[in-house]
Amino acid sequence: MTPDEFRDAGHELIDLIADYLDDVGERPVVPPVEPGDVRAMLPEHPPSVPESWDDVRADIDRVILPTITHWQHPNWFAYFPANTTHSSILGELLSAGLGVQGMSWVTSPACTELETLMLDWMLELLDLPDRFRSTSEHGGGVIQGSASEAVLVAILAARWTATAGAVNTTGETSRLVAYTTSQAHSSVEKGLRIAGIGTDRIRTIEHDEAFAMRADVLAAAVEADIQSGYIPFFVCSTHGTTSSLAVDPTPEIAEVCERAGAWLHVDGAMAGIAALVPEYRWVNAGVERAHSYCTNPHKWMGVNFDCTLFWTADRAALLGALSILPEYLRSAAAESGRAIDYRDWQIPLGRRFRALKLWFNLRLDGVGAAQARIRRDVALAHELATWVTDDDRFDLSAPPRLGLVCLHHVDGDDATESLIARINEAGEFHVTRTVLDDRVSMRVSIGARTTERRHVEALWSAIQEAAA
Amino acid sequence: MTPDEFRDAGHELIDLIADYLDDVGERPVVPPVEPGDVRAMLPEHPPSVPESWDDVRADIDRVILPTITHWQHPNWFAYFPANTTHSSILGELLSAGLGVQGMSWVTSPACTELETLMLDWMLELLDLPDRFRSTSEHGGGVIQGSASEAVLVAILAARWTATAGAVNTTGETSRLVAYTTSQAHSSVEKGLRIAGIGTDRIRTIEHDEAFAMRADVLAAAVEADIQSGYIPFFVCSTHGTTSSLAVDPTPEIAEVCERAGAWLHVDGAMAGIAALVPEYRWVNAGVERAHSYCTNPHKWMGVNFDCTLFWTADRAALLGALSILPEYLRSAAAESGRAIDYRDWQIPLGRRFRALKLWFNLRLDGVGAAQARIRRDVALAHELATWVTDDDRFDLSAPPRLGLVCLHHVDGDDATESLIARINEAGEFHVTRTVLDDRVSMRVSIGARTTERRHVEALWSAIQEAAA
Repeated sequence: MTPDEFRDAGHELIDLIADYLDDVGERPVVPPVEPGDVRAMLPEHPPSVPESWDDVRADIDRVILPTITHWQHPNWFAYFPANTTHSSILGELLSAGLGVQGMSWVTSPACTELETLMLDWMLELLDLPDRFRSTSEHGGGVIQGSASEAVLVAILAARWTATAGAVNTTGETSRLVAYTTSQAHSSVEKGLRIAGIGTDRIRTIEHDEAFAMRADVLAAAVEADIQSGYIPFFVCSTHGTTSSLAVDPTPEIAEVCERAGAWLHVDGAMAGIAALVPEYRWVNAGVERAHSYCTNPHKWMGVNFDCTLFWTADRAALLGALSILPEYLRSAAAESGRAIDYRDWQIPLGRRFRALKLWFNLRLDGVGAAQARIRRDVALAHELATWVTDDDRFDLSAPPRLGLVCLHHVDGDDATESLIARINEAGEFHVTRTVLDDRVSMRVSIGARTTERRHVEALWSAIQEAAA
Repeated sequence: MTPDEFRDAGHELIDLIADYLDDVGERPVVPPVEPGDVRAMLPEHPPSVPESWDDVRADIDRVILPTITHWQHPNWFAYFPANTTHSSILGELLSAGLGVQGMSWVTSPACTELETLMLDWMLELLDLPDRFRSTSEHGGGVIQGSASEAVLVAILAARWTATAGAVNTTGETSRLVAYTTSQAHSSVEKGLRIAGIGTDRIRTIEHDEAFAMRADVLAAAVEADIQSGYIPFFVCSTHGTTSSLAVDPTPEIAEVCERAGAWLHVDGAMAGIAALVPEYRWVNAGVERAHSYCTNPHKWMGVNFDCTLFWTADRAALLGALSILPEYLRSAAAESGRAIDYRDWQIPLGRRFRALKLWFNLRLDGVGAAQARIRRDVALAHELATWVTDDDRFDLSAPPRLGLVCLHHVDGDDATESLIARINEAGEFHVTRTVLDDRVSMRVSIGARTTERRHVEALWSAIQEAAA
């Protein structure tokens, strides 16, 4: 592909994306395909000569658009919002175009410094504690690829701290114990498993009726483990659990962690971004006592995946856990201590210039756009919860929170299963099935960029019809 | 930003990128900035109202372009080539525009199935063994974000295998021992450390004069460990080490691994892609006996970062190590066994539609473009090596291989250090300093997309001048 062909094709692709985002609501949310259908539409072998842009473009229309699940659809009520705003798409484009590697400061100064600044901007916009600020004595922030990677690096920093660094030499973790609830994201167990903390040493702390961790049960479990010779090293408190957006009581949890010397990670992957809106800053409660915190602009806020913000109050622990310096990566800037080498803040070595998309989003849309969307979604969810409560056939499965409503049929699990199946099978809407305390629940997450009141009304009509 | 503003700005940005890639050679390779300079050019606080595209665009010119390190520069001889081809930039753009999440088949069928097909296409183009093909009984491939993540998942699969899955429960790894050389990439030690294998249980196997692992020393070390009650569980054989592109003798290493029951991972991150060219398929030697393999289209081949290809001959071990299935991620497609859920093949849960950029590259440029570039770079490196050999002031520090030449000044380390400093300080070229068996070496990596003979000649003149 020549530069001129790139210009022409690039202009067409920009327009194709703009058209797609405008018209996505006209497609079924989930494509009517079975495993193997997509591959069957494509050649089994690579081309032997270059093809034209027109051919590729035709295949986007013929193969790709009819077989992706449309996360940008206004009737997207599944999983979580994964909004890709126009502004952030341009940021991702520029990142790909410049093709720089941000593993070290010296491998691209702007890539590192813009990222550090964006973390400080977001700290201010979310009203997060100063101990996470890059200019603080011990803290700092970084963009991770996902909240899964964020919790993993938190676990590794905690492991390093609990063993005074010895784990890097010995690999010994057999006395370390971690705590969370059954409502925490699966990435917490996955991260612990990766770090050598098996399920034998993961304590699933009981939750209350609102699906939040019981701090008194945590305190007792920690005490019992200490008595048995274990070392409580890591607690994950979730601000907005995956199934129901429950918020664990971080202030009480922090008390326990501080007494035991355990690392406290707060996972605000989905809900934490609500703190962009002053009236929802209760999602930050207790974060000022956490060792690390993460939230995802790549969900509700609209910065295209991947963009997880991770802050720590103890960057030395992170560096202790993750830093390795071979000769070919040495640089005067890093050795002077005046520059950040973000490779030591993450699992991989290489890194893209992801700060660009956050910068573009904050400048071209402004934080006001995200605030308006969040307020609108919370209001819509509140309305939906009211309709559910007012209909005798349905009950809420958990307290509705922010943009999420979990409901079930009063006739029991079979009726709820059948309801979810009918809603999803028609292809007009997409919701997620979950289980809350052994009860099957339909999870309606409101937050797609283009969702309006009429889409929620239509979903509610469809739910009522499916239950009839 | 409205859709119409996106169209206009997007067209401009496409042209800006085309111009940048055309003109990047006119800039200094490394920007003349000190830590803090970039931040000082930007406001300390986020904007309170949206800004215009013209303002953002002006800042790309004013702040970003003068302060990034130009990995796309024709005089880029540092680290490794990180080529971002025009075709792959468009693939990344489409991925951002569609905004789909590929964590499961059901969350976007095309995202999963195109990826599987691309891995099979690349298997064919690289002439890799059928046991890695997605249609094989036990194997398969996936796109990882980086070779670091690839080696980590290989280690986790190996750990799961060596403990018959018990590690997921017990976290017990205290008898597991791993083997590699001092020339392996730092991500091997990092991955082992993350997985709970500290340096006490990493054996650094002696290398020969060409910096390749000595299989006889490996065999003896494995035997000694078994005698001492350890379990040799993982060996990393590198095909193209970072410092000198040395190739470990995988056929002999595989013998040792098979006898001991250890997992053999072959890391071909940089050099493996040379197998696109039939005459360089020696880089695949022994890979047919590996349990896992990786190579990076995001280096020499020109698919913009991130795009690491990872294959395994034992996907069950990978799934055993990484799979966790909460209720909210269940799907009929996955439970039928007919669909791949790639979230269980990687560290994070979320994933972008990265297959698009590989698909675009293979279709719009064709494999011929990458083959021509690889052949050209190898020829240029061969020429440079000849010039070095013919000049009494310099010696090769390692056998030149593919696009890499490592050289030093015969007067010793100080002279070489000074040479490297002079070349890099001028800003016209960028090379990497490394150390090979205690000798400082200038590492010249030839492989940027736009590097021509004249650029290598100019570098050689600069080296001669700096030494004079």
